[in-house]
Amino acid sequence: MRERCVAKGDAGRKLGDQLGGKRKKITSKSKESIWEFIKSLLDAWSGWVVMLLIGLLAGTLAGVIDLAVDWMTDLKEGVCLSAFWYSHEQCCWTSNETTFEDRDKCPLWQKWSELLVNQSEGASAYILNYLMYILWALLFAFLAVSLVRVFAPYACGSGIPEIKTILSGFIIRGYLGKWTLLIKTVTLVLVVSSGLSLGKEGPLVHVACCCGNFFSSLFSKYSKNEGKRREVLSAAAAAGVSVAFGAPIGGVLFSLEEVSYYFPLKTLWRSFFAALVAAFTLRSINPFGNSRLVLFYVEYHTPWYMAELFPFILLGVFGGLWGTLFIRGNIAWCRRRKTTRLGKYPVLEVIVVTAVTAIIAYPNPYTRRSTSELISELFNDCGALESSQLCDYINDPNMTRPVDDIPDRPAGVGVYTAMWQLALALVFKIVITIFTFGMKIPSGLFIPSMAVGAMAGRMVGIGVEQLAYHHHDWIVFRNWCRPGADCVTPGLYAMVGAAACLGGVTRMTVSLVVIMFELTGGLEYIVPLMAAAVTSKWVADAFGKEGIYEAHIHLNGYPFLDVKDEFTHRTLATDVMRPRRGEPPLSVLTQDSMTVEDVETLIKETDYNGFPVVVSRDSERLIGFAQRRELILAIKNARQRQEGIVSNSIMYFTEEPPELPANSPHPLKLRRVLNLSPFTVTDHTPMETVVDIFRKLGLRQCLVTRSGRLLGIITKKDVLRHMAQMANQDPESIMFN
Amino acid sequence: MRERCVAKGDAGRKLGDQLGGKRKKITSKSKESIWEFIKSLLDAWSGWVVMLLIGLLAGTLAGVIDLAVDWMTDLKEGVCLSAFWYSHEQCCWTSNETTFEDRDKCPLWQKWSELLVNQSEGASAYILNYLMYILWALLFAFLAVSLVRVFAPYACGSGIPEIKTILSGFIIRGYLGKWTLLIKTVTLVLVVSSGLSLGKEGPLVHVACCCGNFFSSLFSKYSKNEGKRREVLSAAAAAGVSVAFGAPIGGVLFSLEEVSYYFPLKTLWRSFFAALVAAFTLRSINPFGNSRLVLFYVEYHTPWYMAELFPFILLGVFGGLWGTLFIRGNIAWCRRRKTTRLGKYPVLEVIVVTAVTAIIAYPNPYTRRSTSELISELFNDCGALESSQLCDYINDPNMTRPVDDIPDRPAGVGVYTAMWQLALALVFKIVITIFTFGMKIPSGLFIPSMAVGAMAGRMVGIGVEQLAYHHHDWIVFRNWCRPGADCVTPGLYAMVGAAACLGGVTRMTVSLVVIMFELTGGLEYIVPLMAAAVTSKWVADAFGKEGIYEAHIHLNGYPFLDVKDEFTHRTLATDVMRPRRGEPPLSVLTQDSMTVEDVETLIKETDYNGFPVVVSRDSERLIGFAQRRELILAIKNARQRQEGIVSNSIMYFTEEPPELPANSPHPLKLRRVLNLSPFTVTDHTPMETVVDIFRKLGLRQCLVTRSGRLLGIITKKDVLRHMAQMANQDPESIMFN
Repeated sequence: MRERCVAKGDAGRKLGDQLGGKRKKITSKSKESIWEFIKSLLDAWSGWVVMLLIGLLAGTLAGVIDLAVDWMTDLKEGVCLSAFWYSHEQCCWTSNETTFEDRDKCPLWQKWSELLVNQSEGASAYILNYLMYILWALLFAFLAVSLVRVFAPYACGSGIPEIKTILSGFIIRGYLGKWTLLIKTVTLVLVVSSGLSLGKEGPLVHVACCCGNFFSSLFSKYSKNEGKRREVLSAAAAAGVSVAFGAPIGGVLFSLEEVSYYFPLKTLWRSFFAALVAAFTLRSINPFGNSRLVLFYVEYHTPWYMAELFPFILLGVFGGLWGTLFIRGNIAWCRRRKTTRLGKYPVLEVIVVTAVTAIIAYPNPYTRRSTSELISELFNDCGALESSQLCDYINDPNMTRPVDDIPDRPAGVGVYTAMWQLALALVFKIVITIFTFGMKIPSGLFIPSMAVGAMAGRMVGIGVEQLAYHHHDWIVFRNWCRPGADCVTPGLYAMVGAAACLGGVTRMTVSLVVIMFELTGGLEYIVPLMAAAVTSKWVADAFGKEGIYEAHIHLNGYPFLDVKDEFTHRTLATDVMRPRRGEPPLSVLTQDSMTVEDVETLIKETDYNGFPVVVSRDSERLIGFAQRRELILAIKNARQRQEGIVSNSIMYFTEEPPELPANSPHPLKLRRVLNLSPFTVTDHTPMETVVDIFRKLGLRQCLVTRSGRLLGIITKKDVLRHMAQMANQDPESIMFN
Repeated sequence: MRERCVAKGDAGRKLGDQLGGKRKKITSKSKESIWEFIKSLLDAWSGWVVMLLIGLLAGTLAGVIDLAVDWMTDLKEGVCLSAFWYSHEQCCWTSNETTFEDRDKCPLWQKWSELLVNQSEGASAYILNYLMYILWALLFAFLAVSLVRVFAPYACGSGIPEIKTILSGFIIRGYLGKWTLLIKTVTLVLVVSSGLSLGKEGPLVHVACCCGNFFSSLFSKYSKNEGKRREVLSAAAAAGVSVAFGAPIGGVLFSLEEVSYYFPLKTLWRSFFAALVAAFTLRSINPFGNSRLVLFYVEYHTPWYMAELFPFILLGVFGGLWGTLFIRGNIAWCRRRKTTRLGKYPVLEVIVVTAVTAIIAYPNPYTRRSTSELISELFNDCGALESSQLCDYINDPNMTRPVDDIPDRPAGVGVYTAMWQLALALVFKIVITIFTFGMKIPSGLFIPSMAVGAMAGRMVGIGVEQLAYHHHDWIVFRNWCRPGADCVTPGLYAMVGAAACLGGVTRMTVSLVVIMFELTGGLEYIVPLMAAAVTSKWVADAFGKEGIYEAHIHLNGYPFLDVKDEFTHRTLATDVMRPRRGEPPLSVLTQDSMTVEDVETLIKETDYNGFPVVVSRDSERLIGFAQRRELILAIKNARQRQEGIVSNSIMYFTEEPPELPANSPHPLKLRRVLNLSPFTVTDHTPMETVVDIFRKLGLRQCLVTRSGRLLGIITKKDVLRHMAQMANQDPESIMFN
């Protein structure tokens, strides 16, 4: 080790000399010291600088995506005459002629039927608009899937399962590359605009992580250290959620609870900073035009009552059931895609699903609009100025109407129509989302899940409201729901339902509640949200412990060692280590008796990542571990540069060269490639402990000894296979690189 | 290990038999199966049951404390004639004669001067009230310190440093006991009511942890497993903060960021549940009488502007400086208390500080009232109905006054008076808090820190407001602060200042912001709060890395391995392990050549916690580790119960007994006390790795080997001493048990 340190020091000095030489040519001494100072400062602050850059880029990208989606979603319905790049709202905003009531109908905004055949009403106009809607949707979806296929196959999906796996130590080359970043950003806009039942939130986490990867490659501190790079990625994930929802604290918690594997406190602070910068950048771009951070701002005017906990918990149960249904259905469908011929036609699949979605979605007003708008409307309380169909209540003409405090009223025709349409939309969303998530396009499931919950919740809310209005003498309502009181807020039910459904699918709890209340600004409703989230998690866990991300990790066979799984079996290290009984003995190197040729043969014949080094084959006492890569490199270098190294030169790992016969060739010293502190456990160590050590220390392999004698090796692969076996799964389904 | 498993199985069966035997006497078969079922269910759910119980008890205690403090604080000023156990507010609430304006002056509530000498105004009445105030304060403080001294010395302080240490694996017997719980609850009420500059929030965490310890001792799953018990304590800490502030999510984050050492996801969910139940219980008790969860509810009507970030960051700097000043001052004073004769008169110290506090506090209205009320008033925006001195602005008589949107106005006389009084109160609070925290009474520093920040913030806020009003043509104000606009909210500055000061002292970031916005319901102000919190942390960190809790841990020399400290020195395991060069060799046991007497002598002569077991003294190959406690027990049992065990019996740890001469006494098999999987590292392992392993795996010791040969041992103590040495601290200052 001493020698290794010296070697490191040498290398450091050499690198320093080289840099110094370069610098000396262009800078004078005094400038150099300033430069040194700036460099040392930059090094100390590079963590914060990387966070700042990630926040800025992620925020900017999210803002651009929001604006582009806004415009392209409206493009499916019509175009702005004054400037084609205006969305419907922007178009009518700039037109001065409109009043507040007519803000949706301004002359500058033309539906396709108006523009093409100059008709705004009637069956033919409707059909034309319908067709244009479908055409645009198909165009967008086709473009998206083609771009993904041709340029960046990794840009598909939500990316969260893969990022979880990457953060656990697995490397997927190119997954966080610049191409992926670019293509995912562009295609995300396309698929969201195409009206498919998917959200942009999960993919934004992937986009932010690509930013994180890009910026960390600029700083040597991060590009050379995988562990530190992963910390940056954890923080980037937080920034991603922060801009996806405008929820910085929720983002940090999401990264902590759902995405990250190892989350030290330093990462917490940095994530916090990145999330803050990202949210702030997004707010400056102001894509929602309301200078608020939050996506769905709501304000309710009435508190909730204890008796309402019952429907809230019911919504939690619904959320849990939806989570189970979605995970099972989606996984079954994805497995079918992987194993049958279906998987060979990804473009066709996307086209078909888009066409079905567009055809079914257009006639129903609740599925035609974008899902975010739908959720926003469902969350809203019915104020006095609300023109939505959902707020079509029958007003008592004798009652004065204060702006804020509208009592519960009987439902009007609009509400009943809305209920039917919502029910149909709910069934449609449930079915289509199962088929959409997992196609070869970027797709998140936060927004569709929330939409399902919000629809169910709003319906339950209206139901409870009408029940309370018509039966206010029932004992459950008597205490808090007198006639003329505003006691039930259906929007709150929608919010609780959305939280429950999101929780059922992802199994988040704390981060979910924080995101929900950052999202809606509704801090008073923490108890209902928590009750629904916990119920939903319990119900869903009863049917299967895996959340959607873990399920996809398993489906794809990523080598992910889940922190949440408890390993409770009573096996020992000796049961898991290689070689097993009857297998050939472990390939080891001896410290001073093998020739260069022996080692080269061993390297050629095996594909192990490294070899333990022992004193001799007889004593088998372990002295260290040599990486395959470093061995190959060292031998190659020695053969090229060192005098007298031939195939039968003895290789030695000790400090002093071994005593050799007089005429033997010059020996090769390889101590510097030897890791003198390999990780060891005894053969009697319970696997529970071994799994714990692998998880907490992020090991890739671990040697097994008994009284100092090397017995075998356990790799991460062996641990994962053993765990799969113990859980009665196929151990061969796990993928390795 | 096989044998060990069998042994465990045996023990389990035996225990089962015993229980079975007992049960059979009292229950029939069918009842038994139901009981079994309930028991298995209870076991599976015991985690949630413990959380529920902790939440219920912690919430109830917090509610009772709040009510008692309310009453006793008012008792210092007067008494309610209708029922002496009513607080001022309750007293006037029940009296029907009062209108809203006169709610502070109802005839049933009598000041001491009115009651005793029938005078409500005048100098003599003032002096009498003043004296009564001091007397009551002294009485409460004396009672508190005496109770702590006599019954539960551990009940003093905030308890958070000790809980951090306990959660890191150190055991302080009785620290979380029932007596501590009882006495801390009672004395907390007394000291808060006495008007000392301290808060109840930190001690409430201690109280909740005592509840957690109590309930976990009822379930064998937790009472027998230190690790699981610590998880319960982490969750209990979350419940404590949850009820202290009415901030359940902030509580969970506080436990994660500040208190806990090892925080698996399961604990996150459980903490969340406990915090929820606790908050809900507190809300049902409703001590603040407003059926809100939050302590200081505020509602601001104006957004904040970019230019305001500058004063917010200034407040962050102030918070950082205050943090540094407080920590340095308090630690210097506490060190003086520990090392000089001052520490011998704790009762006198409390009496003197209480007297000084009461004498100085009474004349100033901002220090006379309870600190929570003060913070609440400082946070408040000046509404139309506000009668506070701080809201004494000069109104423009020509302007109509809408209720919510009051424009910025010039300050009146009251505001200027208030500024002076606040400045005096600020200086007083800063000085007295440094001397108060650490006395032998329960004392938290959240509320005093927040008060310091809120006072500074409010003054800055009023300053900015007046500047903007009088100089609205300045370039910084021109864009957002036209005349007649309501652009600066001084209450928001108070909130930001409070967050900054709390952050400077505790170095919390994420949990702090979450607590602040749960506390105030002000979700819109997340960016100002974050900016201030991060600035304050940076500034304070520049002067010293330790927060107040770490500083107290160091001061008391608790063996706490901080997760936050990075160990970057290049020492190796061989530099730290015992024995050092020149020291006598390590005390080891051999596997089959020592007699019972040899071992007993070794145990008597040394005080190590355990001994490594090697094959023989020559080969020194490690086979396991035997705990001192288990060895003593096993030998004692064997001598009493096993035939033929005498002093010169050979002890063996192998499977098979060693070959012995024919006439030698019966050997003693001790394999079951041998831990066959001791943790080992090689002597070349960098200490950075060793420290990491100790932290992450929570080890107490680790053996050092080289090529399978035992070289030495590293204990947690050695690691801590080495770290202290490397940080140029006195390694002997660390306390061990």
